[in-house]
Amino acid sequence: MSNQKAARMERIAPFYVMDLLAKAKELEARGRSIIHMEVGEPDFITPQQVVEAGKQALDNGHTGYTAATGIPELRIAISNHYLNRYGITVDPGRIIVTPGSSGALQLVLGVLINPGHEVLMTDPGYPCNKNFVEFFSGVPVALPVGPDTNYQLSAAMVEDNWNDSTRAVMVASPSNPTGTLLGRAEMKGIYETVKSRGGSLIVDEIYQGLVYDDTSFTALEFADDLFIINSFSKYFGMTGWRLGWIVAPQAYVDSLDNLAQNIFLSCTSISQYAALQAFDPDCLDTLEERRQAFRQRRDFLLPALKEIGFGISVVPEGAFYLYADSSKLTNDSFSFAYDLLEDQGVAITPGKDFGNNRPEHHVRFAYTNSIDNMAEGVRRIKQFIKK
Amino acid sequence: MSNQKAARMERIAPFYVMDLLAKAKELEARGRSIIHMEVGEPDFITPQQVVEAGKQALDNGHTGYTAATGIPELRIAISNHYLNRYGITVDPGRIIVTPGSSGALQLVLGVLINPGHEVLMTDPGYPCNKNFVEFFSGVPVALPVGPDTNYQLSAAMVEDNWNDSTRAVMVASPSNPTGTLLGRAEMKGIYETVKSRGGSLIVDEIYQGLVYDDTSFTALEFADDLFIINSFSKYFGMTGWRLGWIVAPQAYVDSLDNLAQNIFLSCTSISQYAALQAFDPDCLDTLEERRQAFRQRRDFLLPALKEIGFGISVVPEGAFYLYADSSKLTNDSFSFAYDLLEDQGVAITPGKDFGNNRPEHHVRFAYTNSIDNMAEGVRRIKQFIKK
Repeated sequence: MSNQKAARMERIAPFYVMDLLAKAKELEARGRSIIHMEVGEPDFITPQQVVEAGKQALDNGHTGYTAATGIPELRIAISNHYLNRYGITVDPGRIIVTPGSSGALQLVLGVLINPGHEVLMTDPGYPCNKNFVEFFSGVPVALPVGPDTNYQLSAAMVEDNWNDSTRAVMVASPSNPTGTLLGRAEMKGIYETVKSRGGSLIVDEIYQGLVYDDTSFTALEFADDLFIINSFSKYFGMTGWRLGWIVAPQAYVDSLDNLAQNIFLSCTSISQYAALQAFDPDCLDTLEERRQAFRQRRDFLLPALKEIGFGISVVPEGAFYLYADSSKLTNDSFSFAYDLLEDQGVAITPGKDFGNNRPEHHVRFAYTNSIDNMAEGVRRIKQFIKK
Repeated sequence: MSNQKAARMERIAPFYVMDLLAKAKELEARGRSIIHMEVGEPDFITPQQVVEAGKQALDNGHTGYTAATGIPELRIAISNHYLNRYGITVDPGRIIVTPGSSGALQLVLGVLINPGHEVLMTDPGYPCNKNFVEFFSGVPVALPVGPDTNYQLSAAMVEDNWNDSTRAVMVASPSNPTGTLLGRAEMKGIYETVKSRGGSLIVDEIYQGLVYDDTSFTALEFADDLFIINSFSKYFGMTGWRLGWIVAPQAYVDSLDNLAQNIFLSCTSISQYAALQAFDPDCLDTLEERRQAFRQRRDFLLPALKEIGFGISVVPEGAFYLYADSSKLTNDSFSFAYDLLEDQGVAITPGKDFGNNRPEHHVRFAYTNSIDNMAEGVRRIKQFIKK
């Protein structure tokens, strides 16, 4: 038995892009110029205010365990953020600070999912969602979505796929890899369907700050008996600090606290004290400038990719991704991505990382790079296609 | 179904001491003097070298994701530590940096345990061990241990309790809450029994740096097909940085990496760069001084507690805990701890947090406080007992 791994490990796939990233770095180390459009990480560094607050936290000796649910000041600051930005009152007691949204997903699924429970989600979707369900020996049910529903689930799809084993539904708005949103009516429809079935809705809002048409909203607007996942990583530019949060229904707070005590003890103390500064008006001004920069990048990259033969039928309204149909250029997007890297030094993510819904016909572009660099990337892709 | 929690939540208990700690803080806030001997966290702050390295990491812009298994420099530094301190060569590729030893336990049990798998451990023991097994819908089997085996498992106990569902054995040396060690021969005996049964041995060495008789060793000395859990929290004084590590059998490295990518993405970047400095000779000198201070504290507290009626039949050789038999003083250690706090302002942890093996007859003292404060604590306990 000693080399037998748990059954879940047969079903939890690594990120395929990691291997491509390693290859890209290897080429870079050998002196090749690489244009990175594969990484789901802002190229902007953490705002200076937050960095300074991190150093101050160290000088102040904030290097011990904190409460498992986070320092009270940060829970209050997050609550104030909902009030200031969305006009919504959220009891800080319902906010649980977590080690990234990864930690948030672990806690939420940990208190919800028994072995065998089914969880509905989109395909394509964030690959870890499926794997978090597998982690608890649950059954991820990834429903194929396309341009017709903005690459999102619909209430009808939830209804049609619900059975006695279904426990929860996961949605993300904006979504990774497609950058598309769920509208208010659609979100509400899904919520009501899930509720009528007695299940739980988990709403991933980690790209919420990066919505480009100024219609950003939170599902907390119309309900408090759903789970919100959010993060300091993307909009706040704090990936390496590992900090996110949950807004939970009141009835689940004690269980989430209990689980957090046991599996995390606490989040990184320094990150928590630093994150207090993320809501400072000067910092938010910086983040708004960055949001505009991401928008300009999208507005550059979208038509440029279309012009060279990629299909993008829905304009992504958030996050920093374009999920492009590459079927006019290749029937094997996985090889295409590797060949493109090898031949032209452009790194993109093949569809394979996001599910089984025609992955061979899709690639994801992350516009986490400057317009100049992306222009060079597009030029190189054009070269590559011509061959 | 919407307020139904996963079955594991019925079996995962919160730390009872958290409630007592909250009460202690409340009393403190009202101006009462409280002597803390309940907390499993060194009172020494993070060494200044590490703090400065953290600030430097922030100035250097190390605020992004790292590799899921940790920055290569840190994996190498940990490997060098094994060489320098124990004369053992460990391939850095087998070292996986984790968000605390909590993260390490999640990864290791995640790659080993199917629902229904049994895991053997001690009672009393670290409460999270049991709960991590529950987390994966496994079955923790906590075997009562006492002074006769140094509060540790023996090869015979492992053999006697092995069945077809048993998958792994967890041991800790030094142990929490008892501070006792497994000797080389005993550790090897357990390892060989587990191996002969085709299972996996998980050795918690997070208090390894805090062994007082200078005979500290690592189980890596005699085997590389076992899992070592270690941490920067206790010996290195970095609790709030959330950083630990696994040394894994080579055959499991890819699976652990895969799982880490999915459930953590990465550890806190700042903590990782700062931890490089933890192995600096000056820093290690500071830590050795602290180890001597802990030893002096033990040598003060142990006879002082015995004198006032607590039973401690095995001298704890490591960690910073004394697990004391309080049956001459009370038949209900839980009420005793609350009454002692209320009456005299002394906070200790009741046995209930560590299992079901006569918890009502035990309390845990953490000597994470100065000798002066502990002397005052002992004086107050004496007062309390007299009443």
